[in-house]
Parts: sequence; C-alpha cells; structure tokens
Amino acid sequence: MRMRHSWDMLNNHLMSQSQAPIVLFCDFGLPYTGQMKARLCREALTSPVIDLFHDVPAYDIQAGSVLLAAHADDFPMGSIFLCVVDPGVGTDQRQPGVLFAGGRWFVGPFNGLFEHVVRRYGEDAKADIKAFEIIADQAAVSATFHGRDIFAPAAARLAKGDQSGLKPVKLKAIRKAEFQEDVRAVIYVDEFGNLMTGIRAKSLRDDEAIEILGHQLAMVRTFGDVEPGTLIVYENAVGLLEIAANQANAHDILRISTLPRIKIVKL
Amino acid sequence: MRMRHSWDMLNNHLMSQSQAPIVLFCDFGLPYTGQMKARLCREALTSPVIDLFHDVPAYDIQAGSVLLAAHADDFPMGSIFLCVVDPGVGTDQRQPGVLFAGGRWFVGPFNGLFEHVVRRYGEDAKADIKAFEIIADQAAVSATFHGRDIFAPAAARLAKGDQSGLKPVKLKAIRKAEFQEDVRAVIYVDEFGNLMTGIRAKSLRDDEAIEILGHQLAMVRTFGDVEPGTLIVYENAVGLLEIAANQANAHDILRISTLPRIKIVKL
Amino acid sequence: MRMRHSWDMLNNHLMSQSQAPIVLFCDFGLPYTGQMKARLCREALTSPVIDLFHDVPAYDIQAGSVLLAAHADDFPMGSIFLCVVDPGVGTDQRQPGVLFAGGRWFVGPFNGLFEHVVRRYGEDAKADIKAFEIIADQAAVSATFHGRDIFAPAAARLAKGDQSGLKPVKLKAIRKAEFQEDVRAVIYVDEFGNLMTGIRAKSLRDDEAIEILGHQLAMVRTFGDVEPGTLIVYENAVGLLEIAANQANAHDILRISTLPRIKIVKL
Repeated sequence: MRMRHSWDMLNNHLMSQSQAPIVLFCDFGLPYTGQMKARLCREALTSPVIDLFHDVPAYDIQAGSVLLAAHADDFPMGSIFLCVVDPGVGTDQRQPGVLFAGGRWFVGPFNGLFEHVVRRYGEDAKADIKAFEIIADQAAVSATFHGRDIFAPAAARLAKGDQSGLKPVKLKAIRKAEFQEDVRAVIYVDEFGNLMTGIRAKSLRDDEAIEILGHQLAMVRTFGDVEPGTLIVYENAVGLLEIAANQANAHDILRISTLPRIKIVKL
Repeated sequence: MRMRHSWDMLNNHLMSQSQAPIVLFCDFGLPYTGQMKARLCREALTSPVIDLFHDVPAYDIQAGSVLLAAHADDFPMGSIFLCVVDPGVGTDQRQPGVLFAGGRWFVGPFNGLFEHVVRRYGEDAKADIKAFEIIADQAAVSATFHGRDIFAPAAARLAKGDQSGLKPVKLKAIRKAEFQEDVRAVIYVDEFGNLMTGIRAKSLRDDEAIEILGHQLAMVRTFGDVEPGTLIVYENAVGLLEIAANQANAHDILRISTLPRIKIVKL
Repeated sequence: MRMRHSWDMLNNHLMSQSQAPIVLFCDFGLPYTGQMKARLCREALTSPVIDLFHDVPAYDIQAGSVLLAAHADDFPMGSIFLCVVDPGVGTDQRQPGVLFAGGRWFVGPFNGLFEHVVRRYGEDAKADIKAFEIIADQAAVSATFHGRDIFAPAAARLAKGDQSGLKPVKLKAIRKAEFQEDVRAVIYVDEFGNLMTGIRAKSLRDDEAIEILGHQLAMVRTFGDVEPGTLIVYENAVGLLEIAANQANAHDILRISTLPRIKIVKL
C-alpha cells in the first residue's frame, strides 16, 4: 500500500524538511527555467531545485499528465513540483492552482495536467488530497509567462511553509473524467531513441502484447536479454511500458515522425 | 523609477545575503559549465548557481549585450553574472573585467558585452556604477578557457565579499558608443521557434508596427488573442518585442536560416 | 608532482568538507539525471551537485575512460563522480563499484570506465587507491536504471561519510590492460564543432604533428593565433589535443559523420 501522510503531519514535516526539492516539470528549458529560478532565489529559498523535464509534449495534456504521475513517486515527501505545461497561458481557459496529493505538492495550471496524479494518489476515499486556486497579484503578472510570475513564487512560498494566497476549491472542479486510464501511444522519446508509452506496465496482462506500427513486441526484463538491434518492450524505471532496441535507436529503426499509437493485442 | 543601491550598502548586503545567486550567461553548455562550477566549488562557495543562457549568439556581441541587459532585472540585488561570450579569448583584444551596475555584478570580458547593462543602469549621473579590471595569476590561466580560469574564480571571490584582484578602471574605457540603442533584428530563437528581437517594447510607438521578411505584424497581448498558427508580435516577459505563432513555430513558418533584420514601419 | 591524500586524512576531510560536489558523468541527460538527483535528495544530501557530461559516447568505454580521467583534476579533493555509462546494465557483465583514487571517489559500473583514472592517479606504488564492490539491496533495484537505484544511493552515502555496503576488491580485478595509453581518435564533439581527441597533449613530441582525414595540422596556442576558418590543433583546457577552426565549425568543415581516427606523423 502506498504511504499517506496526513495534512497536519505534512505541514509540520514540510517546515523542518529543508531537503525536499522543488522539481521543474516544464515544456521548456533555458533561458526560461533560469528566469523561474531567479524568482525562487528572490524568495530567499534554500531548497534544492531539480530539473526533471524540459520537454514535456506541450499540446497533449493527457500525455503530460501521465508523465507527471509516473515520475512523482521517485521524489521525497514534501517535494514541490513546479509544473509549467501551459498552452493556454494568458487566457481565461484555466486557473493557476496547487494540488496536494500523495504527500507532495503540484503547482501549475488547472488544465488537466494533474488528473493522473489525482487518480494515482486520490482513489482511496481516505486519501489526503486538496486543491487550491492561487490568488495572484495581477500587477506583477506578465501576459505570457505565468511560470515565472505566478507558479514560481507560489512554489517558493510553499517551500517556506507559507500557504498564503491559496484559496481551497473542490477537487472535482479540476478533474478530467474524459481522460483514459492509460494513454495508448508513445508519449515521450528520449535521447537514446527509446519510446516511452502512456501505458502502465502492470495493466498489461500475461496473455497480452503490444503492437506499434505493425510490429508486435514481446516483453523482456532488460536490454541485455536480446541481440543488439532487436526491438523490445519492457517495464521502465517509472513503471511505464517502454519500447527500445538493444544498443540501437528504436526511434530511427521505426522511422517515427509523429508519436505513434499503441495497440494491445491478445497473444 | 529603478531602485538603486549605494556601493557601501550593497557591499554590506552582499556579505549577509547568502542567497544572491551566481548566474551563468554563456555561449556554451556542458561540459564547460561543469568545469566552471568545479572552480566555484573549489572556492567553497555556498551561493546558488543558476544556468540562464548556454547559447548566447557567440559572434554578435551587440545581440548578447541586449540579451544580458534585458534579463538582469529578474535577478535579486547582489546577483553575480558570470558572462562568457568571448570570441577573442587568448588574444590581447579585450581585458577580463567586472562591472558593478544596478546593484548587480557582471564578470566577463570587456568586449562590449556589458554596454547595454551600462546604458540601462547607468544613464542617471547619480547611478552607482563602477568598472574593474581583473588582475589574474597568469600561471594558472589556460589559453582557451578564461571562463574557468579567470572569470569563475573572480565571481566566487565576489560572492564571498572579496574584492581582491580588482583594479578600478574608468567606465568610459569599456563603453561602446557605436552600439545602437536597439538591435533591429532577431537576436535569439527559442526552442518553440519564438523569435526574440533586440527591440525594447516600450520604444515602439502606438502608430508603429514591425515588419519581418515582408510580413507586417500587429501587436497583441498574448498568444491566446489570435487563431492558432497566426504570426504575432508582443512584449515578452523581459520587455523585448518577440515574434511567435499561436500554438505553432514562427521560425519554421518564416523558414528562417540566418537571423533576419526587423523594420519599424508607420501604420 | 600530483598531490596525494592519505586514506584516513581523506575520510576526515570528507566529513567536514561540505562543499565537495557530486559530479554527474553520464551518457544521458533529462529526465534521467533528475531521477538520480531525486535519490540524492531522499538521502538528505546537502552537497552541491554538478552536471559535467550528459553525452559521454555510450558504446566506447575507452573514450569515456579518457574523458573522465582528463576532467577529474578540475574538481576539488573529496569530489564524488557519479558515472553512468553503462551499456551492460542489467546483465552479469559488470559489477557496480566504487574507486577511490587521486583523493576523489568514482562510483559506477566496473566496465573499464575507470581504467584511465587508475593509470593517472595510481601509477605510483605509494598512491592511495582502493576499489570496492557495491553490495546493493536487489529488491530496490530496477532492471534498467542502476544509475538511479545503485549508483546514486551509494554516492549519497559516501557524501555523508558512510562507507557501508562497500566490499573491498583487488584493484587488478577492475583493470583493463588492453586499453591503449592514448585513444588516437576524436572522442567528443562539442557544440562549437570542436573535436576533442583522446591524446594527451604532453605525449606529442616537438617533431610530431597530427593528421585527421588527410589534413596535417600544426599546433597553436589559441584560436586567435590563426586566420578565421583555419583548422588548428591545440592543448585544450583539460590537457588533451583538440581540433578546431578559428570562429568556425571544424566538425562541419571536415564533414564528419562518425568519429575519425587520428594519425601521429613525423614532421
């Protein structure tokens, strides 16, 4: 069973836990992450800051939501995810907000990015999970970079145990019931050409396999289990199915231009 | 009005302000930034280090100078910019130096890179602004990497409040009177294909528009104000005019190979 | 002569030296480096973490070994290199281990990556140099990411002065006698198109020159010594021979697709 922390316990914990990091989960890198870190510094923040993603697929919020949920568990309790995947910035389409779930904080746009975190950490009725809107000082907010002007300052305040500027909202207001449980597609390509899918490995049954672009692939445990160049699928280190080729580039072998769909097939 | 800090006030501030960061503003990334951080560590530095730019255009010092000036304000007083855009490294063409302006420190080559910082923070006759040459121990200096061997150690000493090895020079010795007030060109392309220009947004009058490669563009407030795919110009989050396309890649739409010039036209 | 620290002296030093960094030397970048830093945070680590390489050539361990040895000296005593260049991950081909040499720690796979560090720091019979296997808790280890599951936790423990989980092994068990003293090839291409070779500059005699793809190149001190566009070879800032072109891209000029071999020729 997943460990849960109560709200008060976490608050106390957060105040004394100077090592819980701020984690950047963004669809951009330099120089914009540098500008966000400038705001964290302004707030005299002493937390470590960890860059996790600089290239979350920007216009597919479902894919981003699965990536975020899959990676959150690696980080210690009290971690604050600063999530800026925000194609609707500057419009009225989404509120800036904060989610507390699984003992971690998620700061970012309420555009669906947190849906899979809610599902992973909040399915249990007793789970300690809360949502807040951020009440920002509009005078200090630019039209195009809420990551710097709203989300980074809110994350810095949380890291110092300061919950001012947060207004509780009902969790159901931020839910996206229409999102699938798994995203049956490639959702991220890494620099080795490995293809991360949006499918939890534990959801695949023993009598099922996956198919990508006409290739049916068998599950293996690790790269070394097959000959160099062979396409494989395995449970990656964050629990998602991933397609790769031993000592070769699966992206190039499959000649991928857009992110392909994945089929689940019976063996 | 821009806040100014007096020299003595800043020195005291600097000593007690452990959170003022060292900011990397370079035309290179790994592994060279890692080697510079190694030198910062050798000096037992406890300041946070923030990567801001790893890809400043290397052979256009005017563009680099505008980028630096536009981004400096985001960082807190006492910040130390470690600026290595240095095509003349190892020659007699430029001195290594330090500029104190706007309550911040700028360490790097005196090759024009600091000109726009001087203009922004130093126009007022009462502004507290000073320039220094760095007297480096030549025995410890390689021929090709002054960023590591001269600038990083100088920045680390400043961060600890140590101004040894700095020799005051007249500000006018480092000025570049020939630089234009605005650079009417694209000076930086980000990973979304957005085109940052060297033109301050506040310099554009209400009856003026900009033209790029034959396209006249209207000012908007943010991306969401237009249909997807439409080219726009807006004031970006650091006060410069920027050209982008809503949910699309302006760089690709305009088929840019070199950084194009910008015209200012009457409406 | 290279300074050496005794084992006990270093241990004491390590405990009090909070500034010695953890240095990432990997063949991957985000998001995987972020996941490794998450593990460092879990251990309440306060050491600075420095990204040095994210793109060590993955399938040429000799090249990686030379790169590591050439860059280690820049970092202060007590530094801990977290080295993940690990094509054999998840197989029985290599043990996870730790090397102590030159007053620094090297954590990573015993696949030959540490051979040139041993040669640089360990040639002297009195050198203080030790090797250890890491005894990992297999239940917490994924099949594909030992960087996160074995090496990062071991590095974090070392940074706190905790040597538990380390089992001494004979140094000769990790040696690769078959590795050449210098790798006569380009081993790394940087973002300027400069070509780092695996040849120590001091190994080249005054009556020798190098040849790459039919071009014989003369040694110079720095870029500015020749006309723009001219190919040169020089001692780079970590002591290796490097090929570049003044204000131009040597990689493009030479139209390189794979990493070419280098010949040493008599003048």
